[in-house]
Amino acid sequence: MKVGDKHYRTIWMENRKPKSVFVIDQRHLPHQFVIEEITSLDAMCVAIKDMHVRGAGLIGAAAGYGMYFAALEFEGNQSLETHFFEAAEKLKATRPTAIDLTWAVNKQLSVLSKITNLDEVSTKALQTAHEIADLNAEHGLKIGEHGSSLIETIGQQKNGEPVNILTHCNAGWLAFVDYGSATSPIYHAFEKGISVHVWVDETRPRNQGARLTAWELKEMGIPHTVIADNTGGHLMQHGMVDMVIVGSDRTTFTGDVANKIGTYLKALAANDNGIPFYVTLPSSSIDWETKNGLNDIPIEERGAEEVKYIQGLVDKKISKVLLTPKDSKAANYAFDVTPARLVTGLITERGICEANAESIFNLFPERKQFEHTVKNE
Amino acid sequence: MKVGDKHYRTIWMENRKPKSVFVIDQRHLPHQFVIEEITSLDAMCVAIKDMHVRGAGLIGAAAGYGMYFAALEFEGNQSLETHFFEAAEKLKATRPTAIDLTWAVNKQLSVLSKITNLDEVSTKALQTAHEIADLNAEHGLKIGEHGSSLIETIGQQKNGEPVNILTHCNAGWLAFVDYGSATSPIYHAFEKGISVHVWVDETRPRNQGARLTAWELKEMGIPHTVIADNTGGHLMQHGMVDMVIVGSDRTTFTGDVANKIGTYLKALAANDNGIPFYVTLPSSSIDWETKNGLNDIPIEERGAEEVKYIQGLVDKKISKVLLTPKDSKAANYAFDVTPARLVTGLITERGICEANAESIFNLFPERKQFEHTVKNE
Repeated sequence: MKVGDKHYRTIWMENRKPKSVFVIDQRHLPHQFVIEEITSLDAMCVAIKDMHVRGAGLIGAAAGYGMYFAALEFEGNQSLETHFFEAAEKLKATRPTAIDLTWAVNKQLSVLSKITNLDEVSTKALQTAHEIADLNAEHGLKIGEHGSSLIETIGQQKNGEPVNILTHCNAGWLAFVDYGSATSPIYHAFEKGISVHVWVDETRPRNQGARLTAWELKEMGIPHTVIADNTGGHLMQHGMVDMVIVGSDRTTFTGDVANKIGTYLKALAANDNGIPFYVTLPSSSIDWETKNGLNDIPIEERGAEEVKYIQGLVDKKISKVLLTPKDSKAANYAFDVTPARLVTGLITERGICEANAESIFNLFPERKQFEHTVKNE
Repeated sequence: MKVGDKHYRTIWMENRKPKSVFVIDQRHLPHQFVIEEITSLDAMCVAIKDMHVRGAGLIGAAAGYGMYFAALEFEGNQSLETHFFEAAEKLKATRPTAIDLTWAVNKQLSVLSKITNLDEVSTKALQTAHEIADLNAEHGLKIGEHGSSLIETIGQQKNGEPVNILTHCNAGWLAFVDYGSATSPIYHAFEKGISVHVWVDETRPRNQGARLTAWELKEMGIPHTVIADNTGGHLMQHGMVDMVIVGSDRTTFTGDVANKIGTYLKALAANDNGIPFYVTLPSSSIDWETKNGLNDIPIEERGAEEVKYIQGLVDKKISKVLLTPKDSKAANYAFDVTPARLVTGLITERGICEANAESIFNLFPERKQFEHTVKNE
């Protein structure tokens, strides 16, 4: 998508440096636009874990390139299989909740396990990484096409008055390779000339909404207003929200949605006020093995310092300020699970379905065979 | 309550300076403990409006002393009645949502309107201001006694395991003259030896939870954990919250509760998970004239800069950092209304009642006569 007048993806390679992957280091946004060059598996793990790159889809693409670095780094002192298995485990350990990462790493493992000629390994790993990234972008585009029809319908009902969309966290193009999930229908509708306005939850503790979604929307010229996470319920009570669109880090095949902490609260408010609550996701983030999201999706706990300190710009410098008494404890659960009963619909690359197993399998019939592998039954 | 080893109220006078009122300037907490000396009505208005003093009860007490300054400042160039009326309007305009302020100012007006001897005016205004402040502290104490019985019961059910209480914003002693509303039952239970742990919502945008409630609890030695406002729903889904206790800036006689923005979201989550949701309030914050809180309580809108910037400590200095893109818009609704249907009970200085007119009038039968004055019917 656009940064100023230039088109960017969040992760890319350049011909002149075939052993480097470039990413937008998102820690510095919205104040500074910094590009990071990554040249090793370990550096990619750090970039994912410390959230230079973040977002359900992007960390999958990043992990795909991480496996390419693993291929480059193979030295022959253990079996290729063991080497890739260890690299895969390292990558999977960086972020436990989002499933795209696991999906991407497993895709690489599956491709690489079939190679017999050692010379082909890195070429094939790179090709697969590119495929993962391209598929991610393509899925974002399709999610936008499907989702924009919902916005268009509301716009018609409002006779062209702006459609007010609330979103939480950043499921924008910065969270994917391009287009995004939750923002993609908004971009698509905007390009079609539908009047939209976005309420941007700031999304504490890491403020991905205030920092990243607001920045994306600003760069695209889309009207938006940043709000504290506490605000959405009040807006919904007063008819100031027409629909909620969020992303998902993992959706069970039964329709439970793990997404950024606080999503569940907005889903409750939407439900209480009869406002449609849509979740956007590429099918790569569907967990086909987990039935009960609330019980069985692992929720990442991050450091207390992300709650106690916050980063912002002061005197043209990015600084962290202490918010709490120095000795107070803080807890930092990164995600919550919104039960399927609160979700109006899932917007995927194949179309829109209800948040239940039957409707999901109707859209992805080839997955029906996996139902017998359900965990914890 | 205690600051270090010393007992403080949030607002007080000292014998050596009978024309000064002292307050804790809460803008600097938790990083610095600053006492402000206030010597005029205008300075008191600024202190309330700019939130040197804040909190449902404290701004009432502060307004009471504001009327004392008005009495001192009377110069005889207009009628006493007009003089006090103008002072009252000035004070009421500082914060629109909390009703204690209006209550305190009206109480002063009612007392002062009966005075015929000009020499008595300031003495009587001071006496009334003291009475308002003392009543506020006394009500806090009684709310604590009544509310602690609820905590004690849960503690017994948990066989002495800590009772996990979630609170939003600061309805602590800093929000009143002493003891607080939401925190008072916690302090009372803690002093009785009941094991408690408090989840402290940080409460964006002004972070009264992270800054003030956490500081209060720390000074009192009460175990607590600061969380992002997004977190409470997840904790409730996982059995980590036994009860919610919040304060109220205005409660209708029908049980609708205006409180800090975000309260409604926590009430929804408590309701969805079968967790008791209690609201503490002195009866001075009951609005006896408003029936439908959602439609008829005015909701204060504050400046966008409170959302876009946040204050914290960096390099031993309190600084404000920019969180959003510089040009992004932000909206800042300070309160929301939790409908009575989501409230388990109201804890008042007279005891605990249900959040409906019948139960509230049972506790305050002398107010029954006001029912016919209900607005907007």
